[in-house]
Amino acid sequence: MIGESAITSRDAGDPLAHFREAFLRPEGIIYLDGHSLGMMPVATQTVIQNVLSKQWGHDLIQSWNRHDWIGAPARIAGKLAALIGANPHEVMVADSTSINLYKLIVGACLARPERRVILAAEGDFPTDLYMIHGALKALSGDRELKLVPRAALNDALTPDVALLVLTQVDYRSSEVAEMEALCSRARALGVLTLWDISHSAGAVPVSLNKAGADLAVGCCYKYLNGGPGAPAYVFVAERWHGEIVSPLQGWMGHAAPFAFEAGYRPASGVANFQCGTPPILSLLALEVGIDLARQADVAAMAEKARGLGDLFIELTAPHCQKFGVSLASPAAGEMRGGHVALRFPAGYALSQALIARGVIGDFREPDFLRFGFSPLTLTYGEVAKAANIFNETIEKRAWDNPVFRRRALVT
Amino acid sequence: MIGESAITSRDAGDPLAHFREAFLRPEGIIYLDGHSLGMMPVATQTVIQNVLSKQWGHDLIQSWNRHDWIGAPARIAGKLAALIGANPHEVMVADSTSINLYKLIVGACLARPERRVILAAEGDFPTDLYMIHGALKALSGDRELKLVPRAALNDALTPDVALLVLTQVDYRSSEVAEMEALCSRARALGVLTLWDISHSAGAVPVSLNKAGADLAVGCCYKYLNGGPGAPAYVFVAERWHGEIVSPLQGWMGHAAPFAFEAGYRPASGVANFQCGTPPILSLLALEVGIDLARQADVAAMAEKARGLGDLFIELTAPHCQKFGVSLASPAAGEMRGGHVALRFPAGYALSQALIARGVIGDFREPDFLRFGFSPLTLTYGEVAKAANIFNETIEKRAWDNPVFRRRALVT
Repeated sequence: MIGESAITSRDAGDPLAHFREAFLRPEGIIYLDGHSLGMMPVATQTVIQNVLSKQWGHDLIQSWNRHDWIGAPARIAGKLAALIGANPHEVMVADSTSINLYKLIVGACLARPERRVILAAEGDFPTDLYMIHGALKALSGDRELKLVPRAALNDALTPDVALLVLTQVDYRSSEVAEMEALCSRARALGVLTLWDISHSAGAVPVSLNKAGADLAVGCCYKYLNGGPGAPAYVFVAERWHGEIVSPLQGWMGHAAPFAFEAGYRPASGVANFQCGTPPILSLLALEVGIDLARQADVAAMAEKARGLGDLFIELTAPHCQKFGVSLASPAAGEMRGGHVALRFPAGYALSQALIARGVIGDFREPDFLRFGFSPLTLTYGEVAKAANIFNETIEKRAWDNPVFRRRALVT
Repeated sequence: MIGESAITSRDAGDPLAHFREAFLRPEGIIYLDGHSLGMMPVATQTVIQNVLSKQWGHDLIQSWNRHDWIGAPARIAGKLAALIGANPHEVMVADSTSINLYKLIVGACLARPERRVILAAEGDFPTDLYMIHGALKALSGDRELKLVPRAALNDALTPDVALLVLTQVDYRSSEVAEMEALCSRARALGVLTLWDISHSAGAVPVSLNKAGADLAVGCCYKYLNGGPGAPAYVFVAERWHGEIVSPLQGWMGHAAPFAFEAGYRPASGVANFQCGTPPILSLLALEVGIDLARQADVAAMAEKARGLGDLFIELTAPHCQKFGVSLASPAAGEMRGGHVALRFPAGYALSQALIARGVIGDFREPDFLRFGFSPLTLTYGEVAKAANIFNETIEKRAWDNPVFRRRALVT
């Protein structure tokens, strides 16, 4: 078992250690939920205060030009591109992940009218599957969604498939899909690939262009620390520009939004994936998170997320084994995303018991405990401490305490 | 011509006068652009500061429950309902106006599969028409968009029309459509009506249920002072609940979002018009604007917006006549929205000249000057002063000054 001094020396040698000071860190908690909602950068308060009092409050409508609100989605997307292995002109910040999925699903199907199958993984993140079903309702033709286990996706890639939709990191198990291999096979068969990298960006290496991805979406409120419900993004590889376009033809995606032309002319490249007027406060808060993340080395972020996860697994493994908690994530760090998932029948109560002791993780149906290892906000020391608390909590069978009993789900 | 004392007494008798203090009012300008971006409530700064430091910054992921982020869209929609003549359970805050148009256009077409025509007005707000075209691209069947002049809409309502899409207040002329008459005829023919009330709410009387409207969308950053790009809303009359549902089937519109079910079950009523995770900062800023507006009497807001517009028209009419500036809006206040539009060949330069003197209106292609009369933020005295500046600016032929010459459009 790794000792205290080894942990201290890891923190001492951590090239990302200084980022920690850039975040507001509430006392008394160890925050292992950065895979769900990232922490707030301290600078966000200053930026938003300025957006309110100076920009909206004082300069009012003129801020669209004077403070370049109009250019903010493309500007922020350009910064984000480096974090996901894309070129700046291939990324646009807009709307939510769900809505961006729809744009790309419909856009891809319309660009592949002769193919009738959308392929996806059983148990993938629900909104991804829901959006496919919704798109199929609207779309003409007898298209269908084919669901297979993640492990069977490669074999299910056949020439009748228009589009493969897949999360790179599984939201429950944290398993990382083999993006490059899937893209390679898909491309050989003329299948388009649409990746949801919400759980990837800022936590695992993402090289969309190197892997040969066609399309991608992602959210910015997890490891990118963009704030609750921060606007999401779209990636369209340059080779598809002009061919795959958004069916959500809003005025902000028009080639000349302020010409108020009667007919729609899509803006070139990825710019037509903008739709309506973006939520400026949330958008400019997001920029602070992106600005922080791009100061960090992408490989170092992935390495640290993995190292923190490995440490947590190592330190909790004996207790997990003793009490019947199973590791639901790949033990091998390179196969795992930024979070570690454990399964336990009383998982909900255990999660609540940990929260009561200041270790904030989360719970996903039916019995998954998730612990996220955000590389910019955590230390190895904190993770070791969280593992200790986890072990103590298990040792005390805290899940038996009725106070942690399951409440009704939010409906 | 109305005298100074009459204007002073109007302000003295204005039941909405006290709202003015609730807004940050930059010195040296008269803001006549509340029809584009409303002013910032002073309280927004405090609220957002708290959302940042206490909610996101400190309580982090727990804020979804502890501060009811999860319930915010429905809560805010419930407050908004009273401002638009709807029941709370018929309104949902979500996404942008453009995206909400798409949801309802596709949702309505799927509920009316046997009808092939969408009817709209020539020259209506571009994004409304663009979204229809985009929806038609995705939708199966040989549906088409039929465009007729606003005045010809009533006659164009025929039994092959699935849906009429119309802005209640024309974004250029400010002309108010006869909602009740159109709804009545549409309903008799089985045609659904979808109203864009972006330019209406907070400025003209809107009684969606009384008028018999089926569907509506609107934005919240104009007269509702919700902030730049504030989330928009959807109205679905109760009689359509369960029948017209959103094709943008995001997890937040699921009956049980956190059950993470494989299949999509739409939340009941209007709740399935939520889609992805909402942008919390922009959403909670919006709530401040709505809270202010609902303290005001709806009829008083409409009456004051009209009174301010009437005053501006009256005070500028002689100069307009002399210099060839034409009134593009109905002179009769009850036929007019919250803004007044003038047409002038050198409209762009005139608009810039006015801005240089602190009178902030805006310009819309090809030659429309728009002046908005936000009832919560303006006084009669300010409007009279703005009219004076307008007259002086015209008298000096300020539009001939090369400094105000037209720049390239934002593209």
